Amino acid sequence: MDYQNIFSSNAKKMKSSKIRELMKYASMPDVISFSGGIPDPQHFPYQAVSEIIQKWDDKKAQVAMQYGTTTGYPPLVNNLKKRMENLKNINLSGQDLMITSGGQQALFLVSRIFVDPNDCILVEGPSFIGGIAAFLSHQANPIEIPLEDDGINLTILEDKLKECQEKNIKIKFLYTIPNFQNPGGVTLSQEKRKKLYDLSLKYNLVILEDDPYGDLFFEGTPQDYQPIKALGNEAPIIYISSFSKILSPGLRLGWCVADHELIEKMALAKQSVDACSQSYGQIIANDYLEKNIIDDYVETMKKIYKHKKEFMVEEIKKYFPLSVKYTNPNGGFFIYLTLPDKISSEALFKKVIEKNVAFVTGDPFHIDKVEADKHIRLAYSNSSEEQIKEGIKIIGETIKSML
Amino acid sequence: MDYQNIFSSNAKKMKSSKIRELMKYASMPDVISFSGGIPDPQHFPYQAVSEIIQKWDDKKAQVAMQYGTTTGYPPLVNNLKKRMENLKNINLSGQDLMITSGGQQALFLVSRIFVDPNDCILVEGPSFIGGIAAFLSHQANPIEIPLEDDGINLTILEDKLKECQEKNIKIKFLYTIPNFQNPGGVTLSQEKRKKLYDLSLKYNLVILEDDPYGDLFFEGTPQDYQPIKALGNEAPIIYISSFSKILSPGLRLGWCVADHELIEKMALAKQSVDACSQSYGQIIANDYLEKNIIDDYVETMKKIYKHKKEFMVEEIKKYFPLSVKYTNPNGGFFIYLTLPDKISSEALFKKVIEKNVAFVTGDPFHIDKVEADKHIRLAYSNSSEEQIKEGIKIIGETIKSML
Repeated sequence: MDYQNIFSSNAKKMKSSKIRELMKYASMPDVISFSGGIPDPQHFPYQAVSEIIQKWDDKKAQVAMQYGTTTGYPPLVNNLKKRMENLKNINLSGQDLMITSGGQQALFLVSRIFVDPNDCILVEGPSFIGGIAAFLSHQANPIEIPLEDDGINLTILEDKLKECQEKNIKIKFLYTIPNFQNPGGVTLSQEKRKKLYDLSLKYNLVILEDDPYGDLFFEGTPQDYQPIKALGNEAPIIYISSFSKILSPGLRLGWCVADHELIEKMALAKQSVDACSQSYGQIIANDYLEKNIIDDYVETMKKIYKHKKEFMVEEIKKYFPLSVKYTNPNGGFFIYLTLPDKISSEALFKKVIEKNVAFVTGDPFHIDKVEADKHIRLAYSNSSEEQIKEGIKIIGETIKSML
Repeated sequence: MDYQNIFSSNAKKMKSSKIRELMKYASMPDVISFSGGIPDPQHFPYQAVSEIIQKWDDKKAQVAMQYGTTTGYPPLVNNLKKRMENLKNINLSGQDLMITSGGQQALFLVSRIFVDPNDCILVEGPSFIGGIAAFLSHQANPIEIPLEDDGINLTILEDKLKECQEKNIKIKFLYTIPNFQNPGGVTLSQEKRKKLYDLSLKYNLVILEDDPYGDLFFEGTPQDYQPIKALGNEAPIIYISSFSKILSPGLRLGWCVADHELIEKMALAKQSVDACSQSYGQIIANDYLEKNIIDDYVETMKKIYKHKKEFMVEEIKKYFPLSVKYTNPNGGFFIYLTLPDKISSEALFKKVIEKNVAFVTGDPFHIDKVEADKHIRLAYSNSSEEQIKEGIKIIGETIKSML
C-alpha cells in the first residue's frame, strides 16, 4: 500500500535526525562514545530501588500496578511540591505540579498547548535536541538567540522581542536551560536571571525553563543555580525537571510546575497522549524521596561527574590545539567545543568514527546550520577515565592533522 | 497572565470530558462504581513481578534504569513478535513491532502520522473514549458506523466508503475493536472479519485494530478471536495491543504491529513525545513472558472476569425491567445497555449517583449524542459480588421508578 498520500503533513516532514543516525555508530561495540547525554549506569541506585519494592505491602503494590491519575500519583506530587519549595525556592501559590513521562513529555505537552503551525518560539543557539524536536513536531518556527558564556544573549533577545512586538508577531515562548546548558555547558548568571525575569514581565513572554541538571553542580551552593521561576510567579514561567539524572532515565518520569490553568490544559492534552504516567515508577520515586535516598545518590554523582569533567578538560588541554575553544561546565554532562576556522564538525566526525570514537556534531543543536558546523558536543557522563584518555587523544590528533 | 490568546487552536478546544467529571464521583469512598475499565487489582501478579526484579543481575538492573531504544527493549520486541506469530497467527514478514507507552500512545501516534485537521476517519458507534480522544486531539472528523451484535455494520460501512470514494473524500483509517468491544461488549464475527479484510483491500482502507482484551475470552478458543490482521498483510492493518489487561496498566506498556514504513514513522513521532518507553517495566514484561507467568495469570483472570460477568448478568435479569437491552460479552470488561425509550442515561446517572452507585453514560462513546443518551456502560471487572448485587439492584430499581 502506498501510504504517502494519506500521511499527515506532520508525518511527511518527519525524517530521522542526524544525531539518531550518528548514534548508530555510537552504540557499536568498541566505539568510545561521547555522544549520548546518558547517566553513568554503574552507579544507578538499582539496589535501593529493588529494596524499596520488596518493602511494599499488598495495597501499595496494587496501586503500583494500577492505572493512575493523569496528573500523577498524589503523594509524589505532594513530595515534589515540597522539594520545589524547600530546595528550589519556588513559591507554589497559584501554581500546580504534574508528573510527566520524562521531561521530554513536558516539552511535548507545552508545545501542544501553545504551538500552532508557523508560530514563533525562541530557542537558545545551541539548544537541546529533544526540545527542538518537540517544537518542530508542532511545526513551530524557532528563532535562535545565541548563547554566551553566562547564558543567553539578552541584548539580542530584547531586540528580537521589540521587533516582534512592532511587527505584531506573537512569540509563544522562550525555551531556556539555565543550568549547565545542554549542549552548551554554560550557566545563566544570577544577574541575567533577574533581567530575563523582568523581560518576561515586560513583554508577557512565557519562559519554558528546563532544568534537568540543576542538582548536579560541581561548585557553589544550590542558591547559585536557583531557577528563574524562584524569582516569582508574576512572570509566566513554566518550570520542567526530571528524575532522569537524579534517579533513572529508564523510569521516564519528569515533572512540570506552572500556573494552575496551564497544568490543567497540559493534563487534558496528556489524557490523549498516554492517559497517565507509569504508576510503578512513581511509587518507586516517591519512596526514594521519602526515604531520602536521593540526597546520597546526588552527592555521589556530583563527585563522579565532577571528576570525569575535570579529567576530560585536562585531556583536552593536553591533546587539543589551542585554537579549539571549549566550555568548562560547573555541572551537568556536557562540554561544547568550537573548532578552529575551516574545520567542519561533520568532516571531523567522519574521520574520528573511523578510529572508533564518536561525539555529536553541532548540527542537531542549531537552527543556523553554518554556525552548527563549527561545533561538537562531548558528554563525559558515561565514559571511564581510560575511554576519555584514549578518545580525547584521538579527536585531538585528528583535529591537528586537519589543520 | 492571560494565556487565552496564545493557546494553540488545539488547546482552545480542549475541555474536560464528561467521563472524567463523572469519574470524580466514581472514585469517592462508599460509591459502588461500575465506571472505570480497570482490572481487578487484588489479583495483579505483583509478587511475581517483585521476584522478577530481585533476580536481576547488575547488568540487567542497569539496563532497566537506563534510557532505551525508541522502538523498545529489543528482547521484548522479539518475544512479542514470537507471541504475535504463535498465539495470534500474525505473519511478521514485511511487518515490524514497536513498544508504546500503553496502547493509548499507539492510538496517539497513529493519529499523529495520519491525521491533519478535518481529515475523515471512521469509528464504531459506540467506541473507546481514549481512541476518540486521540483522534479529536488531532482535530479529526470522526464518522460513526453503528455496531451490531456481531460487530460493525458492514453494509453501512461499505455505503460510506462508496460515498467517500465518489465524493473524493479520503478516509484516513477505520478504528475497530473486534474482541469484546469497549464499550459495546460485542465481538466481530469471523465472517465479518473476512469481509472487512476484503473491504480494506478493495478501498485501500487502513484498519486500526485495537485488541487489548483479545486474550481474555470466556468461551471458545484463541482461533475464535484471532485478529483481522491474522488474515494477511495485503490489506493495510495496524494491530495494537497492550499489557494493561494481561499484566498491569500501571506499567504503561503497549505495542503495535504494522508495515515497517508505518512503524518507522511512528517511532520518529515517538521521539518527540517521550523519547522511549520506560525500560524498567519493559524488562519486567520481558521476564514475565519468558518465565511464562503470563499464561497462569491470563487463565486465572479469564475465570474471575467470566464469573463477575455471569454474576452481573444474573443480577441484571433479576432487577432490570425486560425493556432494558444488554450485551452479554464473551470476554473483556464491559456490558453495554440500551435503556427503555424516554429514559435518558444522564438523568439515570444523576439519580443513581445520589444512591452512591456510578456507571458511565453513553455520552463519551458516541459522536451521535441523541443515540448516546440511550445507553450506559457497566464494567464488572473491578467489583465484588457484593458490590455488583447491591449496585445492580439500585440501578434496576431506579430505572423502574422512572418508567
